[in-house]
Amino acid sequence: MGQQETGSVLLAINGVERDIWMHELAKKRQVVLDPAEAGTAPIRYAVVWKQQRGLLASLPDLEVIFSLGAGVDHVLSDPTLPDLPIVRVVSPNLTQYMVEYVTWRVLDHHRQMLTYRNLQANSEWFAPAQPPAPEISVGFMGFGELGRASANAVQSLGFQINTWSRRKAQADGMKCFGGADELDAFLNETDILVVLLPHTPQTTGIINHALLSKLRRDNALGGAFLINAGRGGLQKEVDILRALDDGTLKEASLDVFEIEPLPKASPLWAHPRVFITPHSSAVSDARELVPAMLRQMDQYERDGKLQHLVDRKAGY
Amino acid sequence: MGQQETGSVLLAINGVERDIWMHELAKKRQVVLDPAEAGTAPIRYAVVWKQQRGLLASLPDLEVIFSLGAGVDHVLSDPTLPDLPIVRVVSPNLTQYMVEYVTWRVLDHHRQMLTYRNLQANSEWFAPAQPPAPEISVGFMGFGELGRASANAVQSLGFQINTWSRRKAQADGMKCFGGADELDAFLNETDILVVLLPHTPQTTGIINHALLSKLRRDNALGGAFLINAGRGGLQKEVDILRALDDGTLKEASLDVFEIEPLPKASPLWAHPRVFITPHSSAVSDARELVPAMLRQMDQYERDGKLQHLVDRKAGY
Repeated sequence: MGQQETGSVLLAINGVERDIWMHELAKKRQVVLDPAEAGTAPIRYAVVWKQQRGLLASLPDLEVIFSLGAGVDHVLSDPTLPDLPIVRVVSPNLTQYMVEYVTWRVLDHHRQMLTYRNLQANSEWFAPAQPPAPEISVGFMGFGELGRASANAVQSLGFQINTWSRRKAQADGMKCFGGADELDAFLNETDILVVLLPHTPQTTGIINHALLSKLRRDNALGGAFLINAGRGGLQKEVDILRALDDGTLKEASLDVFEIEPLPKASPLWAHPRVFITPHSSAVSDARELVPAMLRQMDQYERDGKLQHLVDRKAGY
Repeated sequence: MGQQETGSVLLAINGVERDIWMHELAKKRQVVLDPAEAGTAPIRYAVVWKQQRGLLASLPDLEVIFSLGAGVDHVLSDPTLPDLPIVRVVSPNLTQYMVEYVTWRVLDHHRQMLTYRNLQANSEWFAPAQPPAPEISVGFMGFGELGRASANAVQSLGFQINTWSRRKAQADGMKCFGGADELDAFLNETDILVVLLPHTPQTTGIINHALLSKLRRDNALGGAFLINAGRGGLQKEVDILRALDDGTLKEASLDVFEIEPLPKASPLWAHPRVFITPHSSAVSDARELVPAMLRQMDQYERDGKLQHLVDRKAGY
């Protein structure tokens, strides 16, 4: 099949290194960074990450939108977004990276990394009391593919697991809560909160002081912990800072922020009990993801079928 | 069964908080800290951790030695040790703690904690390239109960696993090496070395510069890593420091040391690429372990049987 006979691809990714995506897509398709470059070839596909507002609406031949990453708020937030199918990238590597990040952050908080770091800085040989994992509960807010896989990994290390999602989930050996009515009960039994919610109008700013104050603090670790690997729009950073300073939260691991990159002036950078990563908990690997996108384009041209479609009404 | 009819217990533990062990053992047995306190009651059992040399040989009625912790070098190194059965404490919690420690340290090295910590200190938003777990191999030197359980946990996160033990092991999906002949091949394919060997005359000082220089350094993480959660006597600390400074090792996590507590003057404390914990990777929990010891004493008095006996000839 020649490139002329199949649709071209617009690569509209921002804040991400483009070269590797271009290189991988160009193995099978004509790829352009600007619609003007396409000439007469119809742009039938767009591969997007935080695309420029209005860009997709300007493409008369566009048929399918491919979103980098599991979350699609960065696509949907464009008010001019055309009503076309959106394919979410779901990759085993992405899930593996996220499982690893969540496990790593849970263990760092549970094994008292900050305490050990301070002891070492003072050449002090002392072992703080260490509660075993079964005495600590890790609560997953958001229980999609990434949440479920991460919860399984943390459960296998012996922790108690709670889950909360819009519709109550089912999971072996976990305590599952669902809907607004059960959110407080979920929080009251959670020591380490892992946020993997989709970002929708309903979840914007949900991680605020009132919510954090409902976490369990009288536990064997002497405080509550927050890990946000979902989206920055879920959290109110001014509330997180207040919660850290008034004892509501003991420590936080944040991979996502209200504004990204996190501004240099943010007090989060220097807070001694905040651990920051730059939206790198789970990275999309072009070498792995592009072949799956190219296969979907081929299949779509054969029979019109697409997998991993986003539910636009639900917003994720 | 009254305390008079059964054997008393000598609690000979050093460098460990004694009160909780005393409290738990005293629920069912007469417990003494000094043989002189026993009066006419025969001391048939000793619960020991780094016992005073010669102490056990002075007890004419001693029948069974219970060792805190999975390793027993601290018991066997007493040249006057009487030829009595030694029961090793094997607890699910101990294994769980060790699995957690090893997983935590592997993830901290793999996810580049030191790099992120430096980036955060400079308020710098930058994601270093992150190799996926399957590109990194974790090699377990020592593959007893703790090694096997830890390897399983690390394998489930996607890492390649190598194992080395005196007699070659068998394990699904892992590359197993055995004996002195295969040690170099094991090291050549290992990026992150996890040491969980028993400490015997044959393994003393085995973690030296020559051994570390055989690890794989041209990997996706750009260097080799050492995690020692076995025994301090396995390592030559002067060699580890040299390996860190000449590029043989990128980072090290050390839970055990040649001399414990680690002397204040040790340059390990201040080394920026060494993470120190004070022999606390897996802590023995008296509330969990003492009931099992008391059950073994009762059973021994009924039928003479003991579980989890140490092979004194092998030294572990």
